[in-house]
Amino acid sequence: MHYKNDIFLKVVRGEEVPRPPVWLMRQAGRILPQYRELRASLKDFKELVETPDKAAEVTIQPIDELGVDAAIIFSDILVIPDALGLTYQMEEKLGPYFPKVISSASDIEALYSAGDAEARLQYVYDAISLTVRQLDGRVPLIGFCGAPWTILAYMIEGKGSKTFSQAKKFLYTEPLLAEALLDKITEASILYLKQQVKAGAAHLQIFDSWAGLLSSEQYAQFSTKYIGRICSAIQDVGITVFAKGAINALDDFAKLNCEVIGLDWTMEPDFARTRVGDHMVFQGNLDPCVLYASPESIKGYTIDMISRFGKKHIANLGHGVYPDTPLIM
Amino acid sequence: MHYKNDIFLKVVRGEEVPRPPVWLMRQAGRILPQYRELRASLKDFKELVETPDKAAEVTIQPIDELGVDAAIIFSDILVIPDALGLTYQMEEKLGPYFPKVISSASDIEALYSAGDAEARLQYVYDAISLTVRQLDGRVPLIGFCGAPWTILAYMIEGKGSKTFSQAKKFLYTEPLLAEALLDKITEASILYLKQQVKAGAAHLQIFDSWAGLLSSEQYAQFSTKYIGRICSAIQDVGITVFAKGAINALDDFAKLNCEVIGLDWTMEPDFARTRVGDHMVFQGNLDPCVLYASPESIKGYTIDMISRFGKKHIANLGHGVYPDTPLIM
Repeated sequence: MHYKNDIFLKVVRGEEVPRPPVWLMRQAGRILPQYRELRASLKDFKELVETPDKAAEVTIQPIDELGVDAAIIFSDILVIPDALGLTYQMEEKLGPYFPKVISSASDIEALYSAGDAEARLQYVYDAISLTVRQLDGRVPLIGFCGAPWTILAYMIEGKGSKTFSQAKKFLYTEPLLAEALLDKITEASILYLKQQVKAGAAHLQIFDSWAGLLSSEQYAQFSTKYIGRICSAIQDVGITVFAKGAINALDDFAKLNCEVIGLDWTMEPDFARTRVGDHMVFQGNLDPCVLYASPESIKGYTIDMISRFGKKHIANLGHGVYPDTPLIM
Repeated sequence: MHYKNDIFLKVVRGEEVPRPPVWLMRQAGRILPQYRELRASLKDFKELVETPDKAAEVTIQPIDELGVDAAIIFSDILVIPDALGLTYQMEEKLGPYFPKVISSASDIEALYSAGDAEARLQYVYDAISLTVRQLDGRVPLIGFCGAPWTILAYMIEGKGSKTFSQAKKFLYTEPLLAEALLDKITEASILYLKQQVKAGAAHLQIFDSWAGLLSSEQYAQFSTKYIGRICSAIQDVGITVFAKGAINALDDFAKLNCEVIGLDWTMEPDFARTRVGDHMVFQGNLDPCVLYASPESIKGYTIDMISRFGKKHIANLGHGVYPDTPLIM
C-alpha cells in the first residue's frame, strides 16, 4: 500500500525522515468536539466501539483536525476479555467495570477459546477495513491490543485500581493459574492482531498500562515473556511496545522482536538509549500535563524533547491525552 | 533516652546489629482487629487522629501484637493542609477529600501562617508525648510528615487521583505560585517536625507518595529541593525519605542530609546502592502483595530481600500494608 504521508512507517523501518512523525495516544476520542458530539448521540462507549462506521469516523477525525502522521483505530484494550466471555461495562467517570471476574481454574476454563474470541471481534476488523478505505492512503492506521498482564489485571480486579492488589495477589497465590490465563490472553491477542493486519492495520501497538505495578522479577515472568511471544508471532508489520512505568524492563525490551519502544515522561531518552541500545526507535514522551500550558510553553517543551531524542524518534505524549486538555487550534 | 530495643536507632546511626530491624508502614491502623474495633467506636478517622489517647493506643497496638522494632505515630500526612486552614474529610473507601482547594494566589494568602499551623497541631504533639510515656522505652517512636509536593498535590487536586493532573497543571501553568505554596508547606512541616521531636519522636520519616508522577526535572525542582530543606533543618534525630516511584531521583537523594532512603518494591537494592552510595541506610522494600501469599512463601521473599540488601538495611514493605492483608499470628 502506498501512503501520501509515510514518515511514520519510514521511521519504523529505520529510514531517514525530514522531521519526527507525530501522533497522540488517545487522539481518537476524548478531546475533539466532533467526537463528543457523536459520543453523546449514542447509548454508551461500548456502542461506539462496536459500531464500525462510527468507530471509523472518530478514528479519522484527528487526521483531519490535528494533522497527525498516523491514525489509531478507535477501540479499547478490553475488547479481548469481552471476546473471551468476560463482559465489561464502561461507567461514566469511573472507567471500566466487570460484573464477573476471574478467581479460579473453572473461571478460566469457562472462557471462550482464543479462536472463538478472534471470531467475536469481527466488528474491530470491519472498523479497520472501513477506516483504511476512508483514509484512502493519507496516513497509515495503527492497530493495538493490551499487554497480557494488563488484561489479566482487569479480568481479576474487575475495575481500575491504584494498586491492582487483587490481581497481584493472584500472581503470588496462584502463579500457575495466572500463567494459564496469560497464555490464553496471549493466544487470543496474537490471532486478534493478525486479523487487524489482514484488515489493513499498517503497524501495531501493545499497551501495558499497569506495567509499573510489578517488581522486576514479576514483570519479567508475567509480562515481558508474553509481550515477547506476541512480538515474535507478528511478521508483517512493525510493533510498538508501550509499557507505562516499566523503567526496569528496558534492558529486557532490547531483546524483543519489536521496532519501537514507547517511553513515558519519567523515562529519560538518554537513560533509555543506554538500556535499549541503538537498534530501536523510541516513541514519546511529553508529559500530557504539558498540554495544559501556554502554546509557547508547549512549543518549548516539544522542541526540547525532540532535540533530546535525536533520530529514531516518533513524537508523542508519554501517556494518553487527558480528557480536559484544552483544544487550541 | 534509653531504649530496651534500640536496633532501629543503631542501624540509623551506622552501628552493627545482629539482624535488620523491622517495622511496617501503616502498621498503626488498618489490619489489627483491635484497631478496627476502636475505629468503629468513633465518629470517623479524623476523630481518631485528633484524640491523643486513642491515637497513642493504636500506635502501640502493633508493638504488642507484631513485635516490630519501632512504633510510628498514628496520624495522617493531611494534618498539615488541615492546620494551614484547608480542611480535609476522610471518606470511607474513597479516601481524602477537600471541600475547598487551592487555585489562586489569594487562596494561598488566605492560609494560616506556618507558625499558626504549628500551634494548631498540638493534638499530634500530645499524642506523641503520651505514646512515648506509654511505650516506656520499649522501642523508639517515629514521627512523620508528607513531602511538600505530595501535600501540594492534595491541596490542589482536592482528592486522590491516578494522575493528579490538576496539581501537575498548576506546576506547568503557575510555577511561581506552586513554589510559594511549597515554601509555606515546607516551613510549616519543619516547625511541625521539630515539635514532634520535642514531644519525643526519636526518628522522622518524610512520605512522598506521589513522587512517581513527575518528570525528573519537575521532581528536582518541585520536590527534592523542598525535601532537602526539611532534612537540613532537622538536627537532632535521623530522617528517612520515602519517595514512592522516584527511581530517577535516587542520584539526587545521595546528597540529602538524611540517614535513610526508603525504597519501593520496583527499586532493586543493587541499582539503588550504585545510585545513592554506601553512606546511607536503605529501608524497604517487600511488595505489600507478598503478604497475601502463604507464610512459607512470605518467609522466602523476606529472606531473599534481606540477603539482597545486606547491611545498612531496615526491613519494611515497599508501601503501606494493604487493608485486606490477612492477619496470621
